[in-house]
Formats: sequence, structure tokens, C-alpha cells
Amino acid sequence: MNGSEAMVQTLLAAGIDTCFANPGTSEMHFVSALDRATQMRCVLGLFEGVVTGGADGYYRMAEKPAATLLHLGPGLGNGLANLHNAKRAHSGIVNIVGQHALDHIHNDAPLNSDVEAVARPMSHWVKTTRSATEAPMDTAEAISQATSTPGRIATLVLPANCAWESADPGRYASAPAQTAAAPLTDSILAIAKILSDKNLATQTTLLLGGAALRAKAAMLAGRIAGKTGCKLASEPRNPRMERGRGRVNIRPLPFPVAGAVEMLKETRHLVLIGAAPPVAFFAYPDKPRMIKQPDCEVHTLATLTHDLEATLQGLCDALDAGSATPADFADEDKIITELPTGAANADNVGYVIAATLPPNAILIDEAVTSGRQLFKTMPMAQAHDCLDITGGSIGFGLPCAVGAAVACPDRKVVALVGDGSAMYTIQSLWTMAREQLDVTVVIFANRSYRILRGELTNMGGPAAGANAARMLDLDKPNLDFVAIAKGHGVPGIQVNKLEDLAAALRVAAAEKGPKLIELVM
Amino acid sequence: MNGSEAMVQTLLAAGIDTCFANPGTSEMHFVSALDRATQMRCVLGLFEGVVTGGADGYYRMAEKPAATLLHLGPGLGNGLANLHNAKRAHSGIVNIVGQHALDHIHNDAPLNSDVEAVARPMSHWVKTTRSATEAPMDTAEAISQATSTPGRIATLVLPANCAWESADPGRYASAPAQTAAAPLTDSILAIAKILSDKNLATQTTLLLGGAALRAKAAMLAGRIAGKTGCKLASEPRNPRMERGRGRVNIRPLPFPVAGAVEMLKETRHLVLIGAAPPVAFFAYPDKPRMIKQPDCEVHTLATLTHDLEATLQGLCDALDAGSATPADFADEDKIITELPTGAANADNVGYVIAATLPPNAILIDEAVTSGRQLFKTMPMAQAHDCLDITGGSIGFGLPCAVGAAVACPDRKVVALVGDGSAMYTIQSLWTMAREQLDVTVVIFANRSYRILRGELTNMGGPAAGANAARMLDLDKPNLDFVAIAKGHGVPGIQVNKLEDLAAALRVAAAEKGPKLIELVM
Repeated sequence: MNGSEAMVQTLLAAGIDTCFANPGTSEMHFVSALDRATQMRCVLGLFEGVVTGGADGYYRMAEKPAATLLHLGPGLGNGLANLHNAKRAHSGIVNIVGQHALDHIHNDAPLNSDVEAVARPMSHWVKTTRSATEAPMDTAEAISQATSTPGRIATLVLPANCAWESADPGRYASAPAQTAAAPLTDSILAIAKILSDKNLATQTTLLLGGAALRAKAAMLAGRIAGKTGCKLASEPRNPRMERGRGRVNIRPLPFPVAGAVEMLKETRHLVLIGAAPPVAFFAYPDKPRMIKQPDCEVHTLATLTHDLEATLQGLCDALDAGSATPADFADEDKIITELPTGAANADNVGYVIAATLPPNAILIDEAVTSGRQLFKTMPMAQAHDCLDITGGSIGFGLPCAVGAAVACPDRKVVALVGDGSAMYTIQSLWTMAREQLDVTVVIFANRSYRILRGELTNMGGPAAGANAARMLDLDKPNLDFVAIAKGHGVPGIQVNKLEDLAAALRVAAAEKGPKLIELVM
Repeated sequence: MNGSEAMVQTLLAAGIDTCFANPGTSEMHFVSALDRATQMRCVLGLFEGVVTGGADGYYRMAEKPAATLLHLGPGLGNGLANLHNAKRAHSGIVNIVGQHALDHIHNDAPLNSDVEAVARPMSHWVKTTRSATEAPMDTAEAISQATSTPGRIATLVLPANCAWESADPGRYASAPAQTAAAPLTDSILAIAKILSDKNLATQTTLLLGGAALRAKAAMLAGRIAGKTGCKLASEPRNPRMERGRGRVNIRPLPFPVAGAVEMLKETRHLVLIGAAPPVAFFAYPDKPRMIKQPDCEVHTLATLTHDLEATLQGLCDALDAGSATPADFADEDKIITELPTGAANADNVGYVIAATLPPNAILIDEAVTSGRQLFKTMPMAQAHDCLDITGGSIGFGLPCAVGAAVACPDRKVVALVGDGSAMYTIQSLWTMAREQLDVTVVIFANRSYRILRGELTNMGGPAAGANAARMLDLDKPNLDFVAIAKGHGVPGIQVNKLEDLAAALRVAAAEKGPKLIELVM
């Protein structure tokens, strides 16, 4: 047994049976080891952003890490943007990144680079294996990191000789992972005291993140708000929100600074439950950096290291809110019955998306400007999961859809993606076709980086001239996403009107397999 | 005048008038400054690998740096792979990478990351501007780095507030760049002494790299070899080789270790002229790491910091070889008259490429396995420049073609790209359409990472099973490059036979504008 075989066995023993991969020569022994491990599902991405974004989406839905296989520093570099998003989603990933043989690194062959240095900015944990014998233990350590609560990005650099040299047979290692910490009882009682005061409660917002946005936890938060009159909000972008009808739907803080500040204007007590203190997504010359008011007190009730559902259960119990009518609850009978028609825009498209969403779907939201109003209509959709672009690095949506669909083959994935965003990782379409993933891709084709057009206008300078237009518009020529999809093996259709979008979404909901709908806006 | 305006003026004052860009919100003030600088040509890439690879190709042909504009750590991350290739090509590039405002970095907004850390592995020089006032001087320093001999990757991180705050009007700075060093006279005499001994000369190889492969320098090397009987070789992958008929054509060391070792087997004196000591591209369990024989002496006559043409001129003079018949010279009348027909393979396709190449073309070579034999036929092509994938990170060819075509609007660019390679940066096609670049793309569609198939076989293990095939083959479904090209606004044609390839290449040579030919192999 060689080092790579021992590593693959260590992964499988820990339940890691999916590997998103884009290998090169230095990873051929690892490929050969995977080849003989038929229990491992290997998913090829034609670009590394598909690989790392796939592992992110997979973790969010499977609740366990996938492995990735990447080729040296440049291959890892191509995967960094979606590792950034995954890191901000607190997704666990075990990256295996090839490196030259230890006795060849100093020869500085053309593909040589400092792989650890490339990994570090977007990893929680980085290590280079020093021998085949140590490879299984290093793998176990990486798994321990990735399976901790919250998940972590673990990057193991694998020199080629450590992959091909002999390892001790049967030395599969394992290492304990950090499990969720118990709720902080004293903090629960302190917050319960605030919320027991009706006057203070109405000036209090519970800001939820991470696992606090799963259905059971959100229901507890809803009951607390129902009982006390406090408000609920979530972080602007969340890894996984269970929402829709029959659930408590917690509104995310808006992306624009003014809207977010407005939402917390009356809040004097901000209680963080798996959330960070909210800050402006970007800095602007004349806008605040922090979203809360200066006199608002921040209370950290629980971080992502804690059991958030148990924390909310404890707070609910302390307030005797277990049978309260939940706030922000979306009734089962509040259904969209009449759909808008005609040209699509950010205000009306959400009704069509919500009304046509199949049961138990996974919605990937990278619609950027076109999706700004979705929070208004999605509580009227069937119960679903929403996976959001946590790190703000566009090019997340299509790869995330790949990973979510691999994790949940029995659920429909609907990916809402802006045209600009889609182009960063368009190669995802081929993986959808190769794996016959049940993904419906909706491209919001507004032919521009619309969000940047808005930001340029916000600066208050002169209207965009020729040079700015050349950097912000996606026209001349227009992208033809139906042709692009066809080229990748995915059937596509272009629609211009909401009624045609609805019809196309209903067809896609009724059938299996990948499809693309280009919505011209 | 604000910081970004002062920076743009500093770039223009130094003759940097081309900016490959993929901006985001934090770069909007820089976009606005570019908007008002109509002398600056702004070229949008829909993915950052197009941006950095474009700047690499531009430098190789324009012989001066372009600027890039990238969005924070993740945007830079997407550009790293082609910065790696550019670094290995010694191309000069001025990267401007946005960063959050200095007073917002510590708030760790979702898109926050350590931008300098992301930049460092693929940059020679990295700096974060600390104020708008310092921005022009920092820009001048970056330009100085990028315009040095050899070129350097200079990455300037620009916090948003330094872009929007006031700078001193008219404080455009400049800094001197490192120019090429004069030839080393003593070293020239020492090498001349070796080459003057007929017996030693036949055991000597001049290994050329960098500017030593331009036509005039190569002609000097050819005369030296013609006079003395020494051999000529070049590095395996070179930034820019001027070759074809009427020129000295210097054979690169082959990629396979065995072939490269064979080529230097008789060499006892290896003279480096702008080249590094040759090493194996990858390490293998049973193959040597170094290409030269253990008893071969290495002489560094000139590094890339030196004037290589002057060095060769000095050596030529010392040997009185100025009127010698050059070795490896391709006669003007040695033309391919009969073309192979039928199915294409790596052995026969080079005849068609060479025979149809238009005069003064720029050939981009990322054909990988399918292009291995091109060195045999390209001396029979019309005089042309060949730009090679110096860093070995695939995804280089299409962006490099973009940059070369922007630099040389009057020359035809022919990009030979493997199907696997093309998919990493396929978005380049849209920039070719947008800018109406005169590029003919030939996709060698062998439906696999053929090189990796070969590497797996070389390992001597069992034949590839299902898991390996899933990671090495690009089929199920096949990519349809004609559809993909159409989606990006580029007309395409698929051909299966060499005679159809020849016809398509002749049509493309006669017309202007981007075209794609998918060659099924």
C-alpha cells in the first residue's frame, strides 16, 4: 500500500466518499489510488472553481466534508475564490493539493510555487505531508479540522513521492473533531432577563446565523419573538436557510448600507446567535462602516462553535415561549395565486420563482441585483433550503448547485445566477451534464454587471462614459447562454416574459436532469 | 484630483495605456478615473484568468507592461494561475488590486481577505498603498518593477479610500527601472576558449532562453554553432521565439524526461544564455530530476538580467563567426508542398499548421500532447513568433492570444489549444468578440486530458478503471466548441479531416476577426 492508497482509505473510513477533482501529473498516483477505491465518487470539474465550489455546496447539504483534488499552486489558485466563499460559509472541506516530490521542489521546475502560501489565505489549516508513512495521520488531522463545528477549510499538500512511496498497511488514523459546545446558561439567563422586559424586548433584535437558520432553530426564535415582541434578523448572506411555507422566515439584513442601518435603527440590544456584528459589505466615503447604531449594545449569546438550536431551546424555555405563536411564520395557505406577466424585473420575478418552486427544493441564490427582492416572495414558496453567496465572490452559484445536487440526488436544485456571475465558473454546466444532476439553472441576463452600474451611480460622479461602459456592460456581443449550455451538453431555452419563465420552470420542475433557462431582463 | 486619477495619470505618463480589467465595487473610483482617461484602452475579461493571461501575452509582444484591475483577494486568486505563467515568462505586469478602505479592513466584511498574502506567491513585488498622496509614487515603483529587465510581476494593493481621497495634483512620480546589464567579457572569453577547441565544441550545447530566442540573437547563436560545431537548444517552454523560414530555429528540450536527457547525452559543457539549468518538468519514481549528465559542466554565460543579444554578439566576435553559415537555419525555399489528408494526429497536424500559417503571424502554443511534434514542421512555416506556456499551468493559450492581439492589431494570431486547456479560460472568446481581435483559435479536441492518460500509463500500474476515466476523459458528454464559441459571439466550425482543417485555416488567414476551428482528433 502506498501513501495515496492509505490516504484514500483514511478518507473512506471517516465517511468521506465524494471527491471533486481536477488533477494533473503530480496527482497521478492519487488518481490511481482513487481508481481502485470504487466506493469513492469522483466528480470532475473542468475548472478548479467548480471543484471547490462543489465541495462547498456539498458540505452545506450533506453536512459532511467532501475531498477535493487539485493540481499544485496554480490549480489551487483557481479554486481560491470559491474556497473564500466556503470559508465564509464555515463549510468543511479536505483539500488534497499535489506538490512536486520533496527532492524536486528545490529544482524549481516550471510549475513550482509555494503551495502552502497559496493555500493559507483561504484555509483554516494547512500542512505539507513529509512522508508516505505520515500521510494517513495528516489526512486524519485534515478530516478532524473539516468535520469540526463549525466546519473548516483543511488543505493538505501532498508531495508526489509521499503519494507513491510505501505506507504502513492498515495504518488508517483518525483524530477527534471539535463538536458543538453546550449553550452558555448564564448568557441565556441574561438575555431572557432583557426579553422579559416588554419595553426592552421591543428594542431587541436577535441576529441569527449558521445553524440557527435551520427550520427547528428558526421556529424556536420565532416563538421567542412571538412571546416577547423582539425582532428577528439574519446575517445578510447565509450558508443555508430553511424557509418557505410552514416555517419561520427570518429576513436577512439588506446589502445596501442604508437599508441595513434602517432595519436596525430602533435596536438598542443586538443579540448575536451564530452571527457576527453586522458591518457594511463595502466602505463608501459618506456611509457608516457599522450597521448598528452607536448606542446599541451587542450581546454575544452564542458563536458558531456552540449548539445554536440548543441555545435557542434554552432561551425559549427560560421565557416559557414554547407554545407562543411564532413571529414571521409563513402560513401554509398563503400561496401566490396570480402571477405577474410581461417583462421581468427585480420586483416581479420573485413571484414566479416562488410560485413554481417544487417541493423540498434547494434554491441557490446568486441572482445579485435581480434577486434583491426575493426575500419578499420566498416565504410563499413551498418549504425549501436557500444557499447564499456568503463570501460575496461571484462565480459561486453554478458550482454550489453541482455540489448540492451531488449531495441530494432526490431533491431539485434551482440555481438563480446573474449573467455576470455565471461566466466565472460556466464550466459547471458540463459537470451537471456529465453527472446528470437535477439542476435547473436560471440566468438573469441583464447584460451588465448591474450592481456595479449602481455602485458607480452611487458615487455621485458623472454618468458612465465609454471606458466605464466597456468595463461594466456585458453586451457587444450579448452572451448566448442557450448556445453556451448546448456546448456543455445542457439543454437550454431563452425566455423574455414572465409567463414564459413560469412555463419553462414548470416543465423543468416536472422533469429530471440539468436544464438552463436564460431570462432576458 | 483623487488617488486613482493620479495613479491613472502616472500609468499613462509611463506609456502604460492598456488595462485588462475585471473590477468590483471596491474598484469603482478607479473605474471612474479610467473612464475620464480616454487614452487608456480598457479590455474587459469576464474571468480574471483572461485578465492576467491577457497582460502576459500583451507584454511578450508589446515589450511593455499592461495594467490589470482586479477585485480584492478572490478576484486576484482567479488570476493567479496565469500570473504564474507570466512570472515564469518574465513578463512585466502592473496589477492594481482593490482592497477595502483602510478603516474597514479590521471589520472583516464578507469579501475581506489578506490580499497581500494572495499576491505574494505569484508576484515579485507587492505593496499596499497607505494614502492617496502616496498612490502615484507607489504606482511609479510598481511600473519600475514591471519595466525592469527581465520583467517583473508588480502587485499594488489599493485600499478604496486611497482611491477616492485627494492626491496632490500633478504629483506624477517616476522611478528608474533596472535595464539590461552589459555582457560579461571574461565569461565570453572563457566560453570562446572552449568553443575554439573543436573537440570540446562538439561536446558543448548553448542553452538559450528569453531574448536569446529573438531572430537576431538566434542568428548569432546559429553562426557560432556553424563555425564551431557546438549544438543549440532552448528551454522547453519559451516566452517568445522568433522562428520559421529565413531564421535560425532552435529546438526546445523535449517535455518527456527521457527525450530531454537523450538530447543532452553527449553534452559535457552546457552554456546557459538566459536559460536555467534544465530540470525534469515533474519528478517520477524512476527517472532523473536533472536533465544534464552528472559529469556535464554548467557555465552561466548570461542570465536574464543581461543583454543577451550583445552577449551572443560578443561571443560571435570572439570566435570570428560573423560570416559563418548559421546552423539550424531554415531555408526560405524549404516549403511544405504536399499536405497530409485524412484523420489528424500529433504527427501529421503540424504540416497543416505550418503550411497555412500567414506571414508574420503570432502562434500561441498550448496544444500540449497534440502539439508535441510541431517543432519539426514550424521551421518550414513563414517567419512567425511562437509564444509558449512557460509556467505549465494550462488555461494560458486563449488569454495570451487576447493579449497578443491587443498588442499587435496588424498581425494574425493563431492559438493552438487543447480541449482540456481551453476550458479553464474559455471566457476569453467573448473578449475576442468584444474587441474584434484577429485571432484564429484551433481547438485540438481529443476528448481527454491526453497528457494525463499518458502519465498514468507511464506509472506502469493497471489500466485506467472507471474512476480514473471519469477524471481523465472529457467525454460523456463531448464538449461542442462550435456552440460554445457561438455563445461567446465567435463564429466556429468543426472539422475532422486535415484537408478540412487546411481549408478552414486558409479562410481564417484571408479574413479578419476572431474564428474558432474545432479539430476532432
